[in-house]
Amino acid sequence: MNSLHTTSNKDNYCIIMAGGSGTRFWPLSTSKNPKQYHDILGVGKTLIQLTFERISAIIPEQNIYVITNEQYKDITLEQLSIKEDQVILEPYARNTAACNIYGALKIYKRNPNATILVLPSDHIITNEQNFIETIEYSIREAKEDNRLITLGIHPTNPNTGYGYIQYDSENPNKRLKKVKLFTEKPDLEIAKSFIASGDFVWNSGIFIWTAKNILQSFETNLPEMYASFKEIEQNINTEKEIQSIKKLYSHTQNISIDYGILEKANEVFVVPSSFGWSDLGTWGSLYEQSKKDNHRNAIFNATVILDNAEGNLIQSQKDKIVIIRELKNYAVIDTKNVLMIIPIDADQKVKNYVNKLKLDKTGDSYI
Amino acid sequence: MNSLHTTSNKDNYCIIMAGGSGTRFWPLSTSKNPKQYHDILGVGKTLIQLTFERISAIIPEQNIYVITNEQYKDITLEQLSIKEDQVILEPYARNTAACNIYGALKIYKRNPNATILVLPSDHIITNEQNFIETIEYSIREAKEDNRLITLGIHPTNPNTGYGYIQYDSENPNKRLKKVKLFTEKPDLEIAKSFIASGDFVWNSGIFIWTAKNILQSFETNLPEMYASFKEIEQNINTEKEIQSIKKLYSHTQNISIDYGILEKANEVFVVPSSFGWSDLGTWGSLYEQSKKDNHRNAIFNATVILDNAEGNLIQSQKDKIVIIRELKNYAVIDTKNVLMIIPIDADQKVKNYVNKLKLDKTGDSYI
Repeated sequence: MNSLHTTSNKDNYCIIMAGGSGTRFWPLSTSKNPKQYHDILGVGKTLIQLTFERISAIIPEQNIYVITNEQYKDITLEQLSIKEDQVILEPYARNTAACNIYGALKIYKRNPNATILVLPSDHIITNEQNFIETIEYSIREAKEDNRLITLGIHPTNPNTGYGYIQYDSENPNKRLKKVKLFTEKPDLEIAKSFIASGDFVWNSGIFIWTAKNILQSFETNLPEMYASFKEIEQNINTEKEIQSIKKLYSHTQNISIDYGILEKANEVFVVPSSFGWSDLGTWGSLYEQSKKDNHRNAIFNATVILDNAEGNLIQSQKDKIVIIRELKNYAVIDTKNVLMIIPIDADQKVKNYVNKLKLDKTGDSYI
Repeated sequence: MNSLHTTSNKDNYCIIMAGGSGTRFWPLSTSKNPKQYHDILGVGKTLIQLTFERISAIIPEQNIYVITNEQYKDITLEQLSIKEDQVILEPYARNTAACNIYGALKIYKRNPNATILVLPSDHIITNEQNFIETIEYSIREAKEDNRLITLGIHPTNPNTGYGYIQYDSENPNKRLKKVKLFTEKPDLEIAKSFIASGDFVWNSGIFIWTAKNILQSFETNLPEMYASFKEIEQNINTEKEIQSIKKLYSHTQNISIDYGILEKANEVFVVPSSFGWSDLGTWGSLYEQSKKDNHRNAIFNATVILDNAEGNLIQSQKDKIVIIRELKNYAVIDTKNVLMIIPIDADQKVKNYVNKLKLDKTGDSYI
């Protein structure tokens, strides 16, 4: 990775958001051990390890923070070579606004000149060089007062699983685009019209801003949340932190950073990008992103004997042999506790099965 | 079972043949732990336990012997409440002739008046009362000099997986029929003609004979094998037994009891029977024999969530949840080390997969 190590500045920070429980990737991803802590690609590294490795080319390792739920503290420290005080623990899941003000405040107290890259722990990025260059550019651009930057992805298909961002296309020579509109996940017809219009990108959930700018924006746009965090600011990075945060989180607002900040703020910009990105939200998206054999089978963590089997995603356990005959376009997901065999294009049904098990008391231990 | 306990005579003996490695039931059945030692029906008892229980209604438990390979000694003693000297150990698999003369000789030395029921360890019998009555009848008939009795099963379909026995149908009122012909597994057309003729039954591999009669028949029909066992007879039931048998088995003939004895002997009779029998030789035969849900799914050792799934055989591991959507007429066999998903009617392909793994050194541990 050294060749990519072009900008390593002590003021550059990163927050990896790793608190999600990823039930769409069940049964591999469970609330006890969610997908970001799995070697879901079968490459010998978990998704959060891949994320950490990718950004350590550009952010000093001691400046990389992970914000996650309390219960994932140990697994985070096992998987990443970071210190305990780089793991920011949330007592409850409270969506991305709370998570971002907490992280920004913690970093700001350590370094008021910090510029922060915020990104999820479980994305796939295939063109790392392009990604790094985009981040470097964004970090430079983020210094401007009040500016908040988000990365947009040039859409390759009318995906209905992503939110979209419309940008101001008036000046085609400017790389940094002013955001006109954030949208929720569209239906197929609308997604097609977004793509046809040419000024929409996928919302990647990757942000770049200075600690100062994002905190100011919280003060303006979510003043109550800002005030409650300011109240406990003096306890952050002290032994009183956990207790204060626990109390604060018990009543803080459950709102996303997009809805709470970005849709309201004025100086929000997007960098339209193409670095081979996927949020890897479902088995189908993993299949799409994966290397396949001659019969379009994508195989992870399994030794297979395939006989007239095509277009399947096969995910099993290390050292397990999987034999499949006459099966087409299925996801075969085999964990210690659950075996799931469903057509890949029915991957949105996974949540139904999870819910079914939730309703059954004994099923809870499988989720 | 007490109600069935009608004839318990100290001269009645049984030999359960349990040395098979059952690769057609792979991956559940492996050479280390073959199918007879599995709770393959998901009823809480293994096949050999079910066999033992069934015959203990008619044979005193101390007279029930198991003949099996050395490597299955411990598992046999774990699963059955019998004494060590009731487990007859073969150092090598040498087919059913050697196994039968060895067992008969051992029992004959203990009780020269013994009548022996010989049966495989892994059959399904659904009508136990009928089975017991048939055995009782056969034991009575077996006392006649030179007589050897085998049980035939009235065929319910032109199965090409079984051998057939043609009997002399001259006297329809006689229950005990003289055997005219033993046949190998036929092709479908021939199997259909057998059924149409009305005087063919399936060869069940269940025998009833006195120790004296079968030993005499060995002397007549396999004199070399007989002589070599007579040579070491004085060592049987002594501490020298294992060593002598090991030496003898290293060179004894590999031949079936059908081919070596029954096809040659004169006084061979068959009792045509109908006690709900299956030799449970393949996943397909297990499926046929099994209880099914409303959508014809047969489920063993799994908690399932089925969604538009029909006609499947699902065998997993205790406490594992199996979710299947849009799958019809498949066998889904999930063990700790192997997951196999194949159409049920391709169950004869299992041996191909086993052979494929045999060719691969590392695959050996899965078989």
